[in-house]
Amino acid sequence: MTKPVRIGLIGTGRIGQVHAMSIAGTPAAELTWVCDPFIEGAQKVAEQYGGKVTADPAEVFASGEVDAVVIASPTATHVDLINAAIDAGVHALCEKPIDLDINRVNELWPKAKAAKVTIALGFNRRFDPQFGEINQRVAAGEIGKLEQLTIISRDPAPAPKAYIEVSGGIFRDMTIHDFDMARFFVPNIVEVSAQGANSFSDDIKSVGDFDSVVVTMKGAHNELITIINSRHSSYGYDQRLEAFGSTGMLYAHNVAPTTVAKYSGVEVESRKPYMEFFLERYEHAYRQELVDFIEGIRTGKSVNPTFDDGRAALILADAALESATTGKAVKVDLSTY
Amino acid sequence: MTKPVRIGLIGTGRIGQVHAMSIAGTPAAELTWVCDPFIEGAQKVAEQYGGKVTADPAEVFASGEVDAVVIASPTATHVDLINAAIDAGVHALCEKPIDLDINRVNELWPKAKAAKVTIALGFNRRFDPQFGEINQRVAAGEIGKLEQLTIISRDPAPAPKAYIEVSGGIFRDMTIHDFDMARFFVPNIVEVSAQGANSFSDDIKSVGDFDSVVVTMKGAHNELITIINSRHSSYGYDQRLEAFGSTGMLYAHNVAPTTVAKYSGVEVESRKPYMEFFLERYEHAYRQELVDFIEGIRTGKSVNPTFDDGRAALILADAALESATTGKAVKVDLSTY
Amino acid sequence: MTKPVRIGLIGTGRIGQVHAMSIAGTPAAELTWVCDPFIEGAQKVAEQYGGKVTADPAEVFASGEVDAVVIASPTATHVDLINAAIDAGVHALCEKPIDLDINRVNELWPKAKAAKVTIALGFNRRFDPQFGEINQRVAAGEIGKLEQLTIISRDPAPAPKAYIEVSGGIFRDMTIHDFDMARFFVPNIVEVSAQGANSFSDDIKSVGDFDSVVVTMKGAHNELITIINSRHSSYGYDQRLEAFGSTGMLYAHNVAPTTVAKYSGVEVESRKPYMEFFLERYEHAYRQELVDFIEGIRTGKSVNPTFDDGRAALILADAALESATTGKAVKVDLSTY
Amino acid sequence: MTKPVRIGLIGTGRIGQVHAMSIAGTPAAELTWVCDPFIEGAQKVAEQYGGKVTADPAEVFASGEVDAVVIASPTATHVDLINAAIDAGVHALCEKPIDLDINRVNELWPKAKAAKVTIALGFNRRFDPQFGEINQRVAAGEIGKLEQLTIISRDPAPAPKAYIEVSGGIFRDMTIHDFDMARFFVPNIVEVSAQGANSFSDDIKSVGDFDSVVVTMKGAHNELITIINSRHSSYGYDQRLEAFGSTGMLYAHNVAPTTVAKYSGVEVESRKPYMEFFLERYEHAYRQELVDFIEGIRTGKSVNPTFDDGRAALILADAALESATTGKAVKVDLSTY
Repeated sequence: MTKPVRIGLIGTGRIGQVHAMSIAGTPAAELTWVCDPFIEGAQKVAEQYGGKVTADPAEVFASGEVDAVVIASPTATHVDLINAAIDAGVHALCEKPIDLDINRVNELWPKAKAAKVTIALGFNRRFDPQFGEINQRVAAGEIGKLEQLTIISRDPAPAPKAYIEVSGGIFRDMTIHDFDMARFFVPNIVEVSAQGANSFSDDIKSVGDFDSVVVTMKGAHNELITIINSRHSSYGYDQRLEAFGSTGMLYAHNVAPTTVAKYSGVEVESRKPYMEFFLERYEHAYRQELVDFIEGIRTGKSVNPTFDDGRAALILADAALESATTGKAVKVDLSTY
Repeated sequence: MTKPVRIGLIGTGRIGQVHAMSIAGTPAAELTWVCDPFIEGAQKVAEQYGGKVTADPAEVFASGEVDAVVIASPTATHVDLINAAIDAGVHALCEKPIDLDINRVNELWPKAKAAKVTIALGFNRRFDPQFGEINQRVAAGEIGKLEQLTIISRDPAPAPKAYIEVSGGIFRDMTIHDFDMARFFVPNIVEVSAQGANSFSDDIKSVGDFDSVVVTMKGAHNELITIINSRHSSYGYDQRLEAFGSTGMLYAHNVAPTTVAKYSGVEVESRKPYMEFFLERYEHAYRQELVDFIEGIRTGKSVNPTFDDGRAALILADAALESATTGKAVKVDLSTY
Repeated sequence: MTKPVRIGLIGTGRIGQVHAMSIAGTPAAELTWVCDPFIEGAQKVAEQYGGKVTADPAEVFASGEVDAVVIASPTATHVDLINAAIDAGVHALCEKPIDLDINRVNELWPKAKAAKVTIALGFNRRFDPQFGEINQRVAAGEIGKLEQLTIISRDPAPAPKAYIEVSGGIFRDMTIHDFDMARFFVPNIVEVSAQGANSFSDDIKSVGDFDSVVVTMKGAHNELITIINSRHSSYGYDQRLEAFGSTGMLYAHNVAPTTVAKYSGVEVESRKPYMEFFLERYEHAYRQELVDFIEGIRTGKSVNPTFDDGRAALILADAALESATTGKAVKVDLSTY
Repeated sequence: MTKPVRIGLIGTGRIGQVHAMSIAGTPAAELTWVCDPFIEGAQKVAEQYGGKVTADPAEVFASGEVDAVVIASPTATHVDLINAAIDAGVHALCEKPIDLDINRVNELWPKAKAAKVTIALGFNRRFDPQFGEINQRVAAGEIGKLEQLTIISRDPAPAPKAYIEVSGGIFRDMTIHDFDMARFFVPNIVEVSAQGANSFSDDIKSVGDFDSVVVTMKGAHNELITIINSRHSSYGYDQRLEAFGSTGMLYAHNVAPTTVAKYSGVEVESRKPYMEFFLERYEHAYRQELVDFIEGIRTGKSVNPTFDDGRAALILADAALESATTGKAVKVDLSTY
């Protein structure tokens, strides 16, 4: 067995803990440092999964004991930490989004493109078995030319108002996953339209954000892409995708806890609600994301979404917000600065 | 258009009315006589669908105004009426079963075999689109050699005690449809085992009958056949069939009123219960049965189940009853007297 | 039984023949006149289903032998025929669209509103058991407040180029059904955005039309509506609808010919393609549409879509075309002139 | 954290390796000894998952370094090893069946009953999420009184002839899982009927065994139980269960690799074949089985199937073989010696 890749985890909140668990469960990875200004959080993670503890990321980079970092700290710190990783010659897997401000992303862009290390973006859904299978089968030509892509993505329940307030808005915070999913199938998107609504949440309305949106986009090869979002869903996590092509269609249904169906005098074929929680729904995806990140470091051929992918998703989010506000379709060019 | 086939309907109870409706809706058929000792019943049907009225079947046969009769009178009259139809040179479509007593059936058997007219048995389920499609695809070799046939057949609710008492028992009254369905796929059945239980109905138990049975049978080519019956089903008519072959399996699901599914916090993919009533569930089958009967008369090549099929189903029912009572598998030979 | 409603059929093309069949199969209706300038067409229909024959609609209205007309002639004749029906005091069921030109529709609008007779528009899909059931359950509050409505509607194959050329474009010809379906759930729509693409058909592109479109709309109560169309679908008629509400979701799946599923080494749960033909797919809907039209005449309380509904659908189609062309969301006001 | 339970693994064949993996993945367990007369097998497992190596089980028991053993050696050794575990005061999780000879099982029975240690039988399917969920919901009364239990269980492909020859026959080797599953729902079974067939395999026929069987059983409370088995299945592992009760039915569908469905001109709703391999299909069940075994040791309250359950399944298998051979239903009494 080759030596495991040594990993420093930066940020030990909910998503950081998920990564810690993934690292611990991946024989090819070893958690060597855990960093969080909230030092108790770092200590708790380190106790359970190993690693030295610090409040300062600089100490991690300077330690010479990490081959890679997983960046799971607040969004505002991402750009600086990626920058530091590049400077330290350390690979980075960074949670989405890179930043809420496209200017800050653009500033780092040339350096990220030139970097020798892997900069991977945490668009975990690409690693979901359902979406991954469809992506491969579309690429293999199973449905001919891809003509229409439809993504339905609804969260079980909205985040607290305090989170929504600093989230950057639904397009940059929630839809950004779907923008990346759209680009997983249609990398070159050229036009964005969006409509937003306040259907149910006064909290979300009060901070000037939408709780429900529909985005339609065009690809460079005449693909029509539709994203339908809601911040709530009474029946659990609703995550479906439909790839419609010239000779067939592939559809990813939701994931149910079991295959058990009930039949009674009031209902038949009835199943228990879908998963409530994104960590549970995408557990496999988070693990596979890390496994592929490690494998990419080893082979030098990363398949994870890149800094460019993170930037493209943010550009699309900004365009959607502009369109929803102005009522005009917005042209985008993802290929240039 | 050729002249319609003139039909006399004998029996105007629930099932007789279904046939009257089918005849009225079939351009190639004409209802010319309606017969029932309960003359008001006959009159009511004739008013709605046409035809002369009589209480005496002999008048129908003697009229010279019927090419065929549909026999929907009580079971005890079937043998005599088929006999009369043969004597009159009139085709007959007779409801199942031919009789509750195999001896009476056997007496008529040689004459029925030699008859120039079509004697069709009312095993309507062969004309169900689901079962018919599977039958054709199995015959076309889509699943290789048929190895296992599984029929699940549950009625929404038991008939009244008064009916059960004279029904001849669950095997001859209810399972008889499934025996014929089994023979639709495996005509030559050689062995029958059965187990019966009193799971829920004191009424049925009190008349010495079972409310739930399982029958297993062997075909001449090593097919294993399973029939699972219940006299009740909380979720509506449960009528499924599974044909398992060496290279594939074909499965007929239940028929739902619509394709609408509901998703909520307590259930997902939930649909309304299946149909409650056999006439509704098998509406298409009853119509197609008549259409094919008429077509068979016209072309001289009937595809409807025959007197032999009716006799075979009764032999299997008797064997099942014997097996359920004695605990022994019963060999049968459907090919000889 | 009350006297049947006497019906004159105007137009005996494909859709006219469907209506003739529905009329013949509806005891409460009687086909008394059949009209088509192509007189052989009229004669053929009359031979099969009854009625006198003429090439001139005026003769039908003047006959005093029709209580109602079914208008199934070319679109360009609809306005004049509705006008004539109103003048003759004859009820009318008119195929969609009223006209391709909203100005002609608007001219007739005040007269249609004031008319004593029923002017029903042939939006047959409202009578589909699937969509009808969802509509009723939404109205009954089963899913709380309706927040998002998603309609996926794909035809098996495009009409011939000659038809497309005079069709008025995909929005007025095909999407118009979906606009009405949207209004079946959300009558008051206030904004329309649309994107069109030429994904597969050079024929359609050559006449300046789209083969694929996505339309998003807003309702007055913050509903977000999405319509996804394609002029082709390899797997048959794709007609789904999803009503997403605050407490649940209702979904209409496609209609399959049977419930049979196949399991083999290359696939499981596999079913035969959906219906290829709109008449087959919507056979029940066409029949129910006529039954309700007749019932509405009888009771004076029509539930069929109205002239207003026909006008509203055309306004939405025009708005969609404008939006797809200009890249701007278009505000609409369906309530005023 | 409490000290992990120290486990000795006896037998390092296919199933032994599965247990080694489960032990390694269970924090509460530690693999301390690995035993196999084929010492290279033991060494290989120990290298990957830890533990000392021996060819002699006696050394494991004598070591004082195991709290429990997992017995995954050939069937013929099970009785002696369970016996040794009891003598050594060591808990045991033993693969099914206990033995092929009910007399040997009966000899050990009183001692096993009196043992202070946990003797758990490896009927892993009880730990499958699907079957477990149904079992709990039936117990919770969701479907009223259980009336009919139907188990369909087909292996992807038969084992090699060499294995079949010493397997003890399909009832003791394959159906034994379904006998235990039946008893998971209906512990007290009182009568067994069975029919066997040679449908496809000359190899299996040549060793005097069946490749396809149907077993029907009665429970003490009038439950009718049906088991349908085949040694092959073209579409992968077929493992379904239907619990039919007085007020509802619960159905466990097969487990598919993903939720992706394909729609094309030849098929719709088509999914990839089910899993081919029992380890993959029951991966979760094997892990949960071990977790519960450990938990049972800790709490003193084991929920795993017991020696009694292993004995009962063998009695049912023997009865089924007798019934299939004699054509007679066989009464069984699982409660006495």
